[in-house]
Amino acid sequence: MLERSHSGMLTLDQENQTVLLKGWVQRRRDLGGLIFIDLRDRSGVVQVVFSPESKEALEQAEKIRSEYVIEVTGIVKRRDEGTINPSMKTGELEIVANELTIISKSKGLPIPIEEHIDVSEEIRLKYRYLDLRRKSMQETFILRHKTAQSIRQYLNRQNFLEMETPVLTKSTPEGARDYLVPSRVHEGEFYALPQSPQLFKQLLMVSGFEKYYQITRCFRDEDLRADRQPEFTQIDIETSFMNQEEIMKLTEEMLRFVVKEVKGKDIANPFPRMSYQEAMERYGSDKPDTRFGMELKQINEFAATSNFNVFKHTVENGGQVSALNVENQAEQFSRKDIDQLTEFVKIYGAKGLAWIKVDENDKLTGPIAKFFDEDDANSLREQLGAKANDLLLFVADQKQIVYDSLGALRLKLGKSLGLINEDQLNFLWVTDWPLFEYDADDGRYHAAHHPFTMPKLEHIEKLTESPEDVQAQAYDVVLNGFELGGGSLRIYEKDLQYKMFEALGFTKESAEEQFGFLLEALEYGAPPHGGIALGFDRLVMLLAGKTNLRDTILFPKTASASDPLTEAPSQVSNEQLAELNLELKKKESQ
Amino acid sequence: MLERSHSGMLTLDQENQTVLLKGWVQRRRDLGGLIFIDLRDRSGVVQVVFSPESKEALEQAEKIRSEYVIEVTGIVKRRDEGTINPSMKTGELEIVANELTIISKSKGLPIPIEEHIDVSEEIRLKYRYLDLRRKSMQETFILRHKTAQSIRQYLNRQNFLEMETPVLTKSTPEGARDYLVPSRVHEGEFYALPQSPQLFKQLLMVSGFEKYYQITRCFRDEDLRADRQPEFTQIDIETSFMNQEEIMKLTEEMLRFVVKEVKGKDIANPFPRMSYQEAMERYGSDKPDTRFGMELKQINEFAATSNFNVFKHTVENGGQVSALNVENQAEQFSRKDIDQLTEFVKIYGAKGLAWIKVDENDKLTGPIAKFFDEDDANSLREQLGAKANDLLLFVADQKQIVYDSLGALRLKLGKSLGLINEDQLNFLWVTDWPLFEYDADDGRYHAAHHPFTMPKLEHIEKLTESPEDVQAQAYDVVLNGFELGGGSLRIYEKDLQYKMFEALGFTKESAEEQFGFLLEALEYGAPPHGGIALGFDRLVMLLAGKTNLRDTILFPKTASASDPLTEAPSQVSNEQLAELNLELKKKESQ
Repeated sequence: MLERSHSGMLTLDQENQTVLLKGWVQRRRDLGGLIFIDLRDRSGVVQVVFSPESKEALEQAEKIRSEYVIEVTGIVKRRDEGTINPSMKTGELEIVANELTIISKSKGLPIPIEEHIDVSEEIRLKYRYLDLRRKSMQETFILRHKTAQSIRQYLNRQNFLEMETPVLTKSTPEGARDYLVPSRVHEGEFYALPQSPQLFKQLLMVSGFEKYYQITRCFRDEDLRADRQPEFTQIDIETSFMNQEEIMKLTEEMLRFVVKEVKGKDIANPFPRMSYQEAMERYGSDKPDTRFGMELKQINEFAATSNFNVFKHTVENGGQVSALNVENQAEQFSRKDIDQLTEFVKIYGAKGLAWIKVDENDKLTGPIAKFFDEDDANSLREQLGAKANDLLLFVADQKQIVYDSLGALRLKLGKSLGLINEDQLNFLWVTDWPLFEYDADDGRYHAAHHPFTMPKLEHIEKLTESPEDVQAQAYDVVLNGFELGGGSLRIYEKDLQYKMFEALGFTKESAEEQFGFLLEALEYGAPPHGGIALGFDRLVMLLAGKTNLRDTILFPKTASASDPLTEAPSQVSNEQLAELNLELKKKESQ
Repeated sequence: MLERSHSGMLTLDQENQTVLLKGWVQRRRDLGGLIFIDLRDRSGVVQVVFSPESKEALEQAEKIRSEYVIEVTGIVKRRDEGTINPSMKTGELEIVANELTIISKSKGLPIPIEEHIDVSEEIRLKYRYLDLRRKSMQETFILRHKTAQSIRQYLNRQNFLEMETPVLTKSTPEGARDYLVPSRVHEGEFYALPQSPQLFKQLLMVSGFEKYYQITRCFRDEDLRADRQPEFTQIDIETSFMNQEEIMKLTEEMLRFVVKEVKGKDIANPFPRMSYQEAMERYGSDKPDTRFGMELKQINEFAATSNFNVFKHTVENGGQVSALNVENQAEQFSRKDIDQLTEFVKIYGAKGLAWIKVDENDKLTGPIAKFFDEDDANSLREQLGAKANDLLLFVADQKQIVYDSLGALRLKLGKSLGLINEDQLNFLWVTDWPLFEYDADDGRYHAAHHPFTMPKLEHIEKLTESPEDVQAQAYDVVLNGFELGGGSLRIYEKDLQYKMFEALGFTKESAEEQFGFLLEALEYGAPPHGGIALGFDRLVMLLAGKTNLRDTILFPKTASASDPLTEAPSQVSNEQLAELNLELKKKESQ
């Protein structure tokens, strides 16, 4: 029996050979008594011709419609010069069919199997199995596969062990909201789905496995944004006895290997590094997109001595004034355009957006220009590197608002002005993170990463008096403005871990109730350890050049965490609830 | 700075070199003013000696206790002839320490870090991070890692794509009990954790990915037996356009590759095959352990014509009489021993166990011997291959009871008589499965595998009239008496899938309500497809020579589905329940 060939792999080396193909009908055309179909399988597409010379096959071919599954036997032929299709990998050949079997039929499609489609995402997800037939989707999941395999290849060579931690775990209120799983056996008790395998991987270090990784599903029951999913995949790595430099080096090498394997590209060696503070000051972001400049410039000193009261008072009140120089764009921005930018920064809490244009004579113009004399103007031009036709944008506000608003404005302008080279993969380390974030609503400190992060040793004494000054031994890897992953050294001493919990507002009892097993484990010879977790979906998204995280997940959830295909979540039977000893709360207003 | 060396990797090639080691103190001995420690890391153990020549290190070493984490710098030295330890990989050398740092201390241990320990499993699980330090546990998880990687290696080479299906899915009552996850956003609705990715992998075939695999977590909320866990890992494979032979061949090749890679062993090529019926008749089991003989022999014809009424009436009433020949063991079994075997078969519903011993003169003895004349005796001896000192055991009952009881008795005797070669890996295919099982409690047929299994084409017409006669295009792979995995071709035609649901007691409406998305997908060009799912934990267990599934899972659950380490499941706050719109049902009797 003839072995199956694959459409996209056929070449003229097989000229005049008989081949057997199986796949989907991409399209059918009838022309001059002949029927042409494009036959598609995972490997690609090839043209098949049915002619009256094989009458039976031709008759069968007349019944064929798009997306029928067929089996074809035919002969590989060189196409006539005039009919060669250079945009098709197999465009120089065609299959002259002599046998055809229709394996499976298709109704008319709710989604065309084409690249550029005008279909709502809801419909794409409902018919995901059709959406996934499209070439770019197939390519994305092939790339996803390759990415996972190259990660494993690298880590296996470094003697890492892939290890599986539980999915049915214990709920801990610290962190994001848990998905819960009611226990049938233990009445009134619940498992939680893991937000990350953090504690288990630390326990594996206490177990002496030394090098662990896992490409694993994690879960967060949070309100969804475009780049979040209730379940997502994490590349989870933990090592013992390695310091921060070593872990960063390992991560870099892994990412360089992966990008080379998957994209054939060389990326920076080593990755640039930046402290958290520098990232905020220069980019107004803790995950800077360094593919373009237009950096924030802090001009507090200038502002404090200027005659423009808005600037002056902001600095006097402990605020900050920063600016962006939108180079050579002054003429492109109308008053109305700038009004729109002002509305944009207000989203981030800024009270306004001051602006100055530099005219062809290097003179400052615009409503606030009058506050600056010749010396001021020179100073400002110098500080911002301003030249003719530059547009200068200012926010004067509390420091965080300045960063958030100008950081977002920078990104918006970078995109809309086409300053970003989409082919670049700019990896970057952000280091020297604060250990805590103050939560004004809660009136307490939260862990900026998580409660197991090791503080810088020289900051430990400040843990209780001035937590805001404590920095972490933590490092984030950023790619093109996305937080790709974050890691840290972990606390491996029980007393320090207690101190950390205390700083987070735990009592000794509440810390033990929730994390007693970790605290106890630290008493039996815990090695120094640390690691990193990288967002696998996000890595795939960026490597695939996609902008929607859902395009990198086979069966993603919508913004309301539902699946239009299977209609999950759904109602369950009363028997199921009764077994779990649960009742749905009755609505009060009925 | 000196790079870290690994204890178990040191050889005399490094004689007189200075090395840096980090790891755990396996044990400490003081002898003649010297201190000896065995230093352990993931790679193994090496002996370190502290002597007065390095006074400071010696003083530090006095503080060392078992399982302290230390850092040692020292020189690799050849041991004196008399002190060489041939049972230790590094037994020819020792490290003469000149520096020692204590990194982390350990309290006295609740579990000794030794191979043969007398500690309850509950304690082992509570201190799992210590239990996992033991050598055989470390080896098991290294083997588990290797097994997973070699599976991937094989499948990647065959152009399979590793693809991730959702964990938050839709609940379907068909099959085992689902674990449910309440939705916060969709009031009163639930996700279910997947019992297997069955429908998603079929949809991926409809999507045209052609070759899919995943090593993935699955979930079943069932009462646990020794070889079940609420979450377990499955090697999940699905392909399009391959027939049963091709899928079986692929699976075999994969397993041969894995066993060769992991164990360095060659296994059968091809695997032996047996129909379901043959397996039941010869071994009383659908997953025969073929590492030893002692097969069941059906003697209905003999029984029907014998003078022993128990046998005779059983056959007359449609039952079955089968026998085991326990060769050359008659003298070893006392009346009391046989009574115990009788109790044993009663567990499986047998009313009794008849027995005959063949004495040294080939004469039948025992309470029922008198019912058989010389001709009967000859006939019986011939049929059962009975010789002097053989013990013949009989069960006369309904067919299924005969199989269950004698099948179990055979295994019990095989083990207790030492008939099993534990080094053997006997793979076996069981084919020609019934498509349905009749459930007398329910009064309806259940799918023997699952409702998506393709019947044999020649049996399709019997789907409605005589479902019990329909066989499936299904195949199980068995290893040493364990069901390692099961697969089938799947239904890819909507009408046949409807018929199947109908045979299972679904109405058209209920089938559509639950599986509408699958039925719809089959209308858009579904390719013929099929696959297999293998129990990864079980494969690892058998390759590691373990008998307890929990020894192959890092953090397993107990028989009551709880984790003594983290104490999952546990109570959650009222706020968490309120957000999910749930209430715990009040106990009625309080």
